[in-house]
Amino acid sequence: MVHLSNPYLDGLKDDILYHFDLGTRSHDLPAMFGDVKFVCVGGSPWRMKGFTQYIAGELGIGDPNADYPNICAGTDRYCMYKVGSVLSVSHGMGIPSIAIMLHELIKLLYHAKCSDVTIIRIGTSGGIGLQPGTVVVTKQSVDPKFKAQFEQIILGESVFRHTDLDEELAEELLHCSKELNEFETVIGKTMCTLDFYEGQARLDGAFCSYTPDQKFNYLRKAYDAGVRNIEMESSVFASMCKMGGIKAAVVCVTLLNRLEGDQITSSHDVLTEYQLRPQKLVGYFIKKQLKKSSQ
Amino acid sequence: MVHLSNPYLDGLKDDILYHFDLGTRSHDLPAMFGDVKFVCVGGSPWRMKGFTQYIAGELGIGDPNADYPNICAGTDRYCMYKVGSVLSVSHGMGIPSIAIMLHELIKLLYHAKCSDVTIIRIGTSGGIGLQPGTVVVTKQSVDPKFKAQFEQIILGESVFRHTDLDEELAEELLHCSKELNEFETVIGKTMCTLDFYEGQARLDGAFCSYTPDQKFNYLRKAYDAGVRNIEMESSVFASMCKMGGIKAAVVCVTLLNRLEGDQITSSHDVLTEYQLRPQKLVGYFIKKQLKKSSQ
Repeated sequence: MVHLSNPYLDGLKDDILYHFDLGTRSHDLPAMFGDVKFVCVGGSPWRMKGFTQYIAGELGIGDPNADYPNICAGTDRYCMYKVGSVLSVSHGMGIPSIAIMLHELIKLLYHAKCSDVTIIRIGTSGGIGLQPGTVVVTKQSVDPKFKAQFEQIILGESVFRHTDLDEELAEELLHCSKELNEFETVIGKTMCTLDFYEGQARLDGAFCSYTPDQKFNYLRKAYDAGVRNIEMESSVFASMCKMGGIKAAVVCVTLLNRLEGDQITSSHDVLTEYQLRPQKLVGYFIKKQLKKSSQ
Repeated sequence: MVHLSNPYLDGLKDDILYHFDLGTRSHDLPAMFGDVKFVCVGGSPWRMKGFTQYIAGELGIGDPNADYPNICAGTDRYCMYKVGSVLSVSHGMGIPSIAIMLHELIKLLYHAKCSDVTIIRIGTSGGIGLQPGTVVVTKQSVDPKFKAQFEQIILGESVFRHTDLDEELAEELLHCSKELNEFETVIGKTMCTLDFYEGQARLDGAFCSYTPDQKFNYLRKAYDAGVRNIEMESSVFASMCKMGGIKAAVVCVTLLNRLEGDQITSSHDVLTEYQLRPQKLVGYFIKKQLKKSSQ
């Protein structure tokens, strides 16, 4: 079961999941979500809608061209789609945006009495020393000093939390990629930053106070520390899923090799194909799991 | 003029503003944006579209019921609308999300050769010790320890930046609110956090490790330090606008009084009316400024 560490929640007459436009009094959450076994999350609302269509087709439980309704249609903060036991939710960009979503998602799964849930973030990232298009399954999320921790500030004080992801799940995803045999997948550390430009040592932001050599040295050090890609959500995702007792994985495609440049210059078609890779891998994994559990 | 502090940008043949789906080679940025004098930004894409319609009507330069095209229609990361000299851009939730947008917005204004630009964030927030619906114009953004600084991590090292906002602009906005005389407006400090639940001492997140007393004491200390509202973007907004040489203000309505509760329980209609208040105030301000400059 999904578990909360909050003694005050059960005392609420109505729990309003404000950024989803859902609530325990206004919606029958167990009826709507009680059968959820897989939750896939990603930054882009379009991509999460696309994933729902894709997984519907892959699992043979829905039309891949159908227009699945957005469960959070009453708000523009996040989008949410469901087909069978697969829930798909967008989370915007950055740690704060995904953290709000995860607080409300974990409460939703708890209120809906879900059990044995697996949650996977399918995203995009900048790669380090990898061919663009390579998929990285995160072993551990690290901060910009390459430490495996997430800093949460509570009542003005820093609290440090673990950022390990489920090892067995990561290995199973790597194994699925080998069976699928369509693109390269590696397991590695993922660096999670609060900024896309200065925070990731890019030379093409509005501000830049370092030289190309300093940038290269920093990324090289990251590579030597085991970092294979950089994104902006994995640390809080790992820490919150662990606290909620939910098995979690991060599967991101790399859109470029940061040792070679900063701008994302690949054509629209190439980038679109890259972004489908985590979806394909996770789709294959879900199909395999459902097959196993129905045997 | 908007200024960049990046010696490498002018060497780029093409500057791709990836998250806007715009670029210096693919778009004639001076022709599209050269006349921009006011930029209004806010978290919600729907609200920013609504603001464009509202300001079109207020300034008498467009139909308030027209369907203004989204300039960033090629991406789902941000929405952008323009009417006359007013640009309206959504920024999602949290520091990282608005920071990506601001890097690309400041570069856009620079490439478009804009001058004398004023940028105003119109948002929502939790109030401290204020009647819900009160509008707060930020004097200074403070962190969760009530310090007026924004921490940017560059090449793994912390850099601290100023978070003061333009004092004269804040006073002018307060003055406008008095002239408008439709709702209460105050000038105060705004606390900027990385999390909506634990980071803002809420008791209704998925996790909560403090008591109601500890929560209340923390918010009381914030009030004593001059904090009148809490949101999630003002610190990086203040610091980046200052670095870009752009006059900036933060105008947020308070949706609830955090000394009295955590959940946003007001009716949809009441919340909708509250959210119009910063728009009305900023609309009044822009109209007055344009009148002044045409005299």
